[in-house]
Amino acid sequence: MANQALENFPYRLEFLVRDYELDLLGMVNNGVYQGYLEHARHEYLKTIGLDFAGMFAQGYRLVVVRAELDYKQTLHSGDRFFVAVSMSREGKVRFRFDQAIFRADGALVLEAKVFGTCLKPSGRPCFPPGWESYFSTPTV
Amino acid sequence: MANQALENFPYRLEFLVRDYELDLLGMVNNGVYQGYLEHARHEYLKTIGLDFAGMFAQGYRLVVVRAELDYKQTLHSGDRFFVAVSMSREGKVRFRFDQAIFRADGALVLEAKVFGTCLKPSGRPCFPPGWESYFSTPTV
Amino acid sequence: MANQALENFPYRLEFLVRDYELDLLGMVNNGVYQGYLEHARHEYLKTIGLDFAGMFAQGYRLVVVRAELDYKQTLHSGDRFFVAVSMSREGKVRFRFDQAIFRADGALVLEAKVFGTCLKPSGRPCFPPGWESYFSTPTV
Amino acid sequence: MANQALENFPYRLEFLVRDYELDLLGMVNNGVYQGYLEHARHEYLKTIGLDFAGMFAQGYRLVVVRAELDYKQTLHSGDRFFVAVSMSREGKVRFRFDQAIFRADGALVLEAKVFGTCLKPSGRPCFPPGWESYFSTPTV
Repeated sequence: MANQALENFPYRLEFLVRDYELDLLGMVNNGVYQGYLEHARHEYLKTIGLDFAGMFAQGYRLVVVRAELDYKQTLHSGDRFFVAVSMSREGKVRFRFDQAIFRADGALVLEAKVFGTCLKPSGRPCFPPGWESYFSTPTV
Repeated sequence: MANQALENFPYRLEFLVRDYELDLLGMVNNGVYQGYLEHARHEYLKTIGLDFAGMFAQGYRLVVVRAELDYKQTLHSGDRFFVAVSMSREGKVRFRFDQAIFRADGALVLEAKVFGTCLKPSGRPCFPPGWESYFSTPTV
Repeated sequence: MANQALENFPYRLEFLVRDYELDLLGMVNNGVYQGYLEHARHEYLKTIGLDFAGMFAQGYRLVVVRAELDYKQTLHSGDRFFVAVSMSREGKVRFRFDQAIFRADGALVLEAKVFGTCLKPSGRPCFPPGWESYFSTPTV
Repeated sequence: MANQALENFPYRLEFLVRDYELDLLGMVNNGVYQGYLEHARHEYLKTIGLDFAGMFAQGYRLVVVRAELDYKQTLHSGDRFFVAVSMSREGKVRFRFDQAIFRADGALVLEAKVFGTCLKPSGRPCFPPGWESYFSTPTV
């Protein structure tokens, strides 16, 4: 993404650091960010009429197959931040999220690429049924 | 790593899935793996005389700057697995962990590259003081 | 509390279930609620000028010594809910939080009593310095 | 339990603190203990032929209805500890776990009483089918 900025993403969700997410170093633990990213993805999907839990109720499991995370700044107690989401299709059975986390003061905290697929009840990967129309072609 | 196998790693730690690590899909949640990887790294460091918490007590913070995670299989309730660790130096102020998770039956569950640095009390990155002799040159 | 209702609490904080907080059963895992309760307590303290992280920066650690949790309903994917907080003094070195969680539709999800103390740098318990004026006498 | 000691429990499971379980204070966060307790309960149940995940596969959900936790000591980075479990029946549709956590040096870290029930597919509570013979009468 040429110009990484909050305004460039079609969706963003505001969060506040919870003190139990901090580790010994007084910083949000590196593993916690994946939870932030997932929650923002699921909320984004809902805004376009798609639903992680609803898909599962129909027997389809949306799973992450690859994640790349670049940690730029650390988040601390009391920090407000935004998790931004952009989605595109990636090949036959994969979708891709470009995500970034920005502190409320605009500082870039984390950049991520998260690649997912959908598992049929049989366990075979597929593109999520009914999602085609929501997906742009990759732009990044 | 040409031949990804548990025996190729200098360190491995055994784990058992805890049911609270599962999510709605009945699989270990994607964010939980980073915790597994971190715990194995910290235990590995102890075996060679290095200590995450001890470094912090001296004012040095070891932080992740980049993580790449490839999810190959999912872990379920009751699964035993091994988290493997290999460490190398990566440039002036970075170190690198090549890690993999194998289910007890040998199935490859996840491959990861985790890049870290050490923050001085001032916040500036450095190579962790005293670590030079423990690091091989990158082999992957 | 004679009449357990959201309006009876001096403070409440709105939350939304995050899917990674669900477990295999599709319900928020029992241990996650303690995180919700803690986050609401810390945010409440800030509204009256008190700060968990700030206390720690001065060498004082606020710790939980006892928690009683009554689970009344389960929370599921997509649920919005409120965590309510009421605080009182409990003896010489303890404080007490009466807390409840209500789903957005008003259903009582959980009731909790959480007792805490403050550890001095020496490790000895004390009533948090400077907090006396903020505390009412127990009302429950 | 008159004489709270590790030997008095029919089951114990060894754990090692993982650094991501620590919070800002450098201590295991209060909410993490419920995860430890749950994991030990589920492992204990397996030793007597009962299975949380297996029950769920048959449509029965084992849920916590009340937890009482007394925090006696804090756990820190590197601590090894044991989570002990004792189980008894409590009335018509409830079971009860008396649990304690001991640091490897024998120090009592936490005492807990955890009350659970089993939800039928309909959502109504029941005593878990097939469990009667495994339960002693309460002894505490």
